[in-house]
Amino acid sequence: MTDLPETNTVMVTLVKPEGQLEVYFERRAMPEPKPHEVLVKVLTTPINPSDLGLLFGGADMTTARAGTRDGLPMITADVPPAGMRAMGGRIGDALPIGNEGCGTVVKAGDSPEAQALIGKTVALLGGEMYAEYRCLPLQMVMPLPDGTDPVDGASCFVNPLTSLAFTETMRMENHSAIVHTAAASNLGQMLVKICAKDGIPLVNIVRSDAQVAILKGIGAQHIVNSSDEDFQDKLVAAIVETGATLGFDAIGGGKLAGQILSAMEVAAVKRMTSYSRYGSDTFKQVYIYGALDVGPTILNRSFGLTWSLSGFLLTPFMAKAGMEVVGRMRQRVVNELTTTFKSHYSHEISLTEALNLDTAHAYNAKRTGEKYLIRPHG
Amino acid sequence: MTDLPETNTVMVTLVKPEGQLEVYFERRAMPEPKPHEVLVKVLTTPINPSDLGLLFGGADMTTARAGTRDGLPMITADVPPAGMRAMGGRIGDALPIGNEGCGTVVKAGDSPEAQALIGKTVALLGGEMYAEYRCLPLQMVMPLPDGTDPVDGASCFVNPLTSLAFTETMRMENHSAIVHTAAASNLGQMLVKICAKDGIPLVNIVRSDAQVAILKGIGAQHIVNSSDEDFQDKLVAAIVETGATLGFDAIGGGKLAGQILSAMEVAAVKRMTSYSRYGSDTFKQVYIYGALDVGPTILNRSFGLTWSLSGFLLTPFMAKAGMEVVGRMRQRVVNELTTTFKSHYSHEISLTEALNLDTAHAYNAKRTGEKYLIRPHG
Repeated sequence: MTDLPETNTVMVTLVKPEGQLEVYFERRAMPEPKPHEVLVKVLTTPINPSDLGLLFGGADMTTARAGTRDGLPMITADVPPAGMRAMGGRIGDALPIGNEGCGTVVKAGDSPEAQALIGKTVALLGGEMYAEYRCLPLQMVMPLPDGTDPVDGASCFVNPLTSLAFTETMRMENHSAIVHTAAASNLGQMLVKICAKDGIPLVNIVRSDAQVAILKGIGAQHIVNSSDEDFQDKLVAAIVETGATLGFDAIGGGKLAGQILSAMEVAAVKRMTSYSRYGSDTFKQVYIYGALDVGPTILNRSFGLTWSLSGFLLTPFMAKAGMEVVGRMRQRVVNELTTTFKSHYSHEISLTEALNLDTAHAYNAKRTGEKYLIRPHG
Repeated sequence: MTDLPETNTVMVTLVKPEGQLEVYFERRAMPEPKPHEVLVKVLTTPINPSDLGLLFGGADMTTARAGTRDGLPMITADVPPAGMRAMGGRIGDALPIGNEGCGTVVKAGDSPEAQALIGKTVALLGGEMYAEYRCLPLQMVMPLPDGTDPVDGASCFVNPLTSLAFTETMRMENHSAIVHTAAASNLGQMLVKICAKDGIPLVNIVRSDAQVAILKGIGAQHIVNSSDEDFQDKLVAAIVETGATLGFDAIGGGKLAGQILSAMEVAAVKRMTSYSRYGSDTFKQVYIYGALDVGPTILNRSFGLTWSLSGFLLTPFMAKAGMEVVGRMRQRVVNELTTTFKSHYSHEISLTEALNLDTAHAYNAKRTGEKYLIRPHG
């Protein structure tokens, strides 16, 4: 305990009223845990697409330039008017970043429950993880088995719980198979493993042969490549075979969500015995849960009137699903941390390297197969 | 009874495999009512947008040409490949048309319930109304009060029940105000009256000053004109004032559905006390129930992740709402037939005039303030 530094370096992102985004480090006073809190030395924290949305969201990154502040690196970029409008609610607030992470409890509040965690490896949820230390209430930490590698514990929440939420949603809303886009992502690979284990038919949509190969390598059954000439036909065939009426789309922009609804409709119409001008009465649902393409969603509405396209977000899902379901989901993540929910990181970087301009451009490109892990203590 | 003709002239629409649409009349044998059926002389039947979808759907009406068949008028038009794909399920089937109507019971099956309706004026649902006579089971007819003008009884179902379904949906899904597009339509005017009576705040979106005037004339409170420069600002202001989180869109194509979601989000964010990168947690729902614009729906997703855009169709709504709710809705239509649910027809035409090419182009243009009523017996 005695060797804790007096300050804690924390990354923050600030939108200034004059139309600039600044990402830099603040040296804050080391937090003091309250009775039901623990202070955690952050050992690992991943860069998820959802972190990038806050980190650089709305800024024109082609204008990004490197600088320094208090001897630490800093990135500045211009924010176009549309971005300023979208971020109206955060102008002038220096916001910490980092949804999740893993670390060691180095200090604890007075309560016995908090004290019991000293020295333990814990997974962390609750923002502000791009920092050396993080103080959190007990319900935001999840103790991991002794000997867990902090690399394995870094991404316990966002991708594992989101992919499990997809299958829970399927059951709650009475579907029997799933279509998933950007399916070669870390999350997509988890979903392939969950669905294989649970016997859920899954149609994986990817956009390159390299991604097809990744998914074949982990045993995915139905893979369609949106770059293929006959993509729509193959998608229909896979949906006919699986009976999928539920989709999760990480891309958001472009025509893909609508193409999925259309393919589901073609499959549903094949099962109809008489014509209806309103299309099939099979309910088709696609959820948009990401924005890999921030451009407009374009729906060519050739899928009747029995459909829904919705946003999907983990937190309200968990609130709706309830404590019991969420508890079951979290336990499964711990149980299968090094199998189903193993994440792969292509790059490990330090906290300050995360604000190196070249590095930032690289992880902000969100290339398939590339995933960055920040190790604040090397 | 004895003066019934031997044949019944029925309008049908046929898509031929070689890529042509034909709309013409068939002389069919006069139907004989079964015990629980009645034979109705169709006196009035409206041309609704949903009828036009079946009548000319998918055809390129710029290629339409007039002809005759068995001495009666006929219209032929070419169907482009996209239309042929969309209508794959109906190729080769001559489909009767006309969702609803009103008429007099001229013959009835043996059951006392059917016999009791002889001579009565009834509203009719169930398709095939663009005909001289229609034979229907009892549950598809709704007896109207003695002395009801068949013009008032013509449109008892599609618009009245759909507009009532909007307010029922509002209550079922826990919203408290509604946004409606193409709001100067017959349906829109009914909705204005229902909402005024029930104390439901309603934001009416129209696209011309003439339509603003129509709605002002019937006492609508919140009217925004999408042709105005500051449309989006005015829409936000109306949504802030009403708290609407539910929209019904008759247009379908273009950016309007997304603009409504965006305006709802701006209004919701104004009520938030802290910034969230995921937007507000206010659930925003827009239903597309029409296709006045058959072009693609374009969503600029600036409305967070707590939203849904869905198709809306009356029949599945009624199935979900249940007998009691639907019974209450139907009774209200009868009670308020000449007030809330009064339809206005700009043109009355005969059955054969409906297939005059110039007339067809006119009603197919779906101009605001123009609504056609077919009177098969003059």
